[in-house]
Amino acid sequence: MLENFDRLIAMRDYKTRSEAIRDLIRDALIQQKIDSKSEIKVLGSLTLVYDHHASKLLQEMAEIQHLHHNLILSVTHLHITHEDCLELIALHGAANEITTLANALLSLKGIKHGKLFLTLPYSVIVKKDSLT
Amino acid sequence: MLENFDRLIAMRDYKTRSEAIRDLIRDALIQQKIDSKSEIKVLGSLTLVYDHHASKLLQEMAEIQHLHHNLILSVTHLHITHEDCLELIALHGAANEITTLANALLSLKGIKHGKLFLTLPYSVIVKKDSLT
Amino acid sequence: MLENFDRLIAMRDYKTRSEAIRDLIRDALIQQKIDSKSEIKVLGSLTLVYDHHASKLLQEMAEIQHLHHNLILSVTHLHITHEDCLELIALHGAANEITTLANALLSLKGIKHGKLFLTLPYSVIVKKDSLT
Amino acid sequence: MLENFDRLIAMRDYKTRSEAIRDLIRDALIQQKIDSKSEIKVLGSLTLVYDHHASKLLQEMAEIQHLHHNLILSVTHLHITHEDCLELIALHGAANEITTLANALLSLKGIKHGKLFLTLPYSVIVKKDSLT
Repeated sequence: MLENFDRLIAMRDYKTRSEAIRDLIRDALIQQKIDSKSEIKVLGSLTLVYDHHASKLLQEMAEIQHLHHNLILSVTHLHITHEDCLELIALHGAANEITTLANALLSLKGIKHGKLFLTLPYSVIVKKDSLT
Repeated sequence: MLENFDRLIAMRDYKTRSEAIRDLIRDALIQQKIDSKSEIKVLGSLTLVYDHHASKLLQEMAEIQHLHHNLILSVTHLHITHEDCLELIALHGAANEITTLANALLSLKGIKHGKLFLTLPYSVIVKKDSLT
Repeated sequence: MLENFDRLIAMRDYKTRSEAIRDLIRDALIQQKIDSKSEIKVLGSLTLVYDHHASKLLQEMAEIQHLHHNLILSVTHLHITHEDCLELIALHGAANEITTLANALLSLKGIKHGKLFLTLPYSVIVKKDSLT
Repeated sequence: MLENFDRLIAMRDYKTRSEAIRDLIRDALIQQKIDSKSEIKVLGSLTLVYDHHASKLLQEMAEIQHLHHNLILSVTHLHITHEDCLELIALHGAANEITTLANALLSLKGIKHGKLFLTLPYSVIVKKDSLT
């Protein structure tokens, strides 16, 4: 694994291995800071990959999303093939509530892969020096 | 109805009733021209209003949309309230195929209101003087 | 124009020309009714066709949209070709404010074609018998 | 930083610091594996946070996006406040081309934060046992 990691470091123009690890750790810390603090209002995107034929999946997704409709800015659905779906959900709200919503969707049977990405509004990032 | 129509004419700064009717007719003719010519490649938007609780509606919509996934650029879904849904579908393809798809969706039980709007790409509008 | 209009009437199974004109007028009146009543909260979609190369257009659109960001649920942008853009804007708010916003965008130099479609939430349509 | 990292390790139930670092590195390698293999067709989402007032940013973003319009399925733009923007870009194409596009956008002056997430279509994930 370290061998591959050294190749990755070379590709991304890091000078030392510790420099690259430091960046990975900082990213993890930022995500962690956002995740666990319920009082922080965050922006987020949830990406989901699934097959719309999965039994009851669409109905369950709609039910969960509407229960939390105050957190969901928009849902963009792309029909990739007759079976493949890609869904991008834009989110805005308390970090802990969004995380709960994302976990509820990601754990549905039929959702094959996905990722929640949380970040902060531009105006907040700019003001918080420690995060820039 | 004519009374209301005269008020509308006044609000939109038309000078005569026949001038306003001419504009309504021209709009209808443009839409008709696009609709009926299968060989024309058009852009479109289909707006749908529905309640996602309607039995089987989501599954039927997904089925129809995936059958025509080559015509659908994207589907944007907005969760308005716990029951109200607004859906905007971006379309690209032959006018007659898009019209067929739109009619199939608009006629589904549970879709309460909606509208297909067809237009042409910017580069086509600019070249076709008669349409500008 | 009347000749073409008569063909349109024939295709849509109207029996008389006045019957077709009455339908066109009624549609215009319904839209007008929603438009002019500021107290009605509506849903809407605004479809825009433009060339993103048009000088200052993107900056002007962003400026207008952000000034009214409370009315805009989402903006979906489709890159059709290197120059052609299709944009679908989902709207929610007072009818008069949305109409003002739409007119400001539609009148921008560089926007070649577009259409505002206003409707009511499902729950309102169902309750108001006169509109169903 | 190590202190905070140790708290993160504790919260996520890792037993040792090296175990946690190993997971971070593995995630980076998986993303890297997809990134560097040009022959793999992937799905992706790119999330961007920015201020639309940044000089020339909108025009530069539009230019880059249209040059690669064949990779971009849709762009969803959310107006958070008068200055804050959240943008979700849905992607489909060769992993290396998408990565190049994402890096070009992420490195633009004015983009404050962002993340590319790459994944595979459902039908591919299901067939490739090693990835499930």
